[in-house]
Amino acid sequence: MPEGDTHERLICRECGFVHYENPKIVVGSVIAVGHQVLLCRRAIHPRKGYWTLPAGYLELNESAGDGALREAWEEARARIALDGLLAVYSIPRISQVQLIYRARLAEPGFAAGPESEEVALFDWTSIPWQDLAFPSVHWALGHFAETRGQEVFTPRSNPVDVAGAERGPAPRL
Amino acid sequence: MPEGDTHERLICRECGFVHYENPKIVVGSVIAVGHQVLLCRRAIHPRKGYWTLPAGYLELNESAGDGALREAWEEARARIALDGLLAVYSIPRISQVQLIYRARLAEPGFAAGPESEEVALFDWTSIPWQDLAFPSVHWALGHFAETRGQEVFTPRSNPVDVAGAERGPAPRL
Repeated sequence: MPEGDTHERLICRECGFVHYENPKIVVGSVIAVGHQVLLCRRAIHPRKGYWTLPAGYLELNESAGDGALREAWEEARARIALDGLLAVYSIPRISQVQLIYRARLAEPGFAAGPESEEVALFDWTSIPWQDLAFPSVHWALGHFAETRGQEVFTPRSNPVDVAGAERGPAPRL
Repeated sequence: MPEGDTHERLICRECGFVHYENPKIVVGSVIAVGHQVLLCRRAIHPRKGYWTLPAGYLELNESAGDGALREAWEEARARIALDGLLAVYSIPRISQVQLIYRARLAEPGFAAGPESEEVALFDWTSIPWQDLAFPSVHWALGHFAETRGQEVFTPRSNPVDVAGAERGPAPRL
């Protein structure tokens, strides 16, 4: 543990270099097109074949919002405009913080990028709830529905049950 | 550049290991005590001797909110409760995303932690505007004043001028 620090770190025995490991930031968006939402079917592991939001790791020297725009392009060939921060999810088990925005298409059109097998629009009732890639996709869609039509709202965070444990919300049909 | 990637990465020529470098997450809070706010005078570089919010790097396996609570304890020996997300600032130049919460004391009392020379409460007009450590401290205090008394509000992001460049807001006296 370096002097004045509160956590153990990986330190080089030769030169004393401290290798800090840090949580990762995921940026993504729920893209509304009319009354539908856009989802991507993953062409890559993990969770290949399952449906997800356009989202991915923020890059160095990139703002959070720019990262969400880039991911929408890379995964769904969609040019989007952000309508505000929908949610901040923390997934401590995998050291991840996710910033999910509400968005819409800035230009018509979308298509599968290299990491997607398929990109499609879904009505609320046709969302493939059983085939979503990650719990946070479930959360974000629920929070999107909850805040739909609200101009000003408090961004959501992880759903918690009374014991404080993380859980996915039930689908809102 | 690894296959299917969009950015150049550091790759080991021997074993092909890809070293991804990622932006860092800073978590912190504007702590209101009555009509005053709590600030810490930095005992460490950079910006030693200047005033800042209790804030620091999120640790592995830590939620964003828990990180803000930990930083308030480490830097200001304050036990706080979070009242919602005040702002998300992106500082792409230094690959940083800051999540700043509104908070209040959950228990009375505070004191300088090891990284602070001094911790004090300030009326709005007595805030040491010329001696704030970082532009984002300035931004967060301005956004705190702007949203004070609002239960529901949209979290703020970096102030931008018409050209899109980052700037600090003028102090709101």
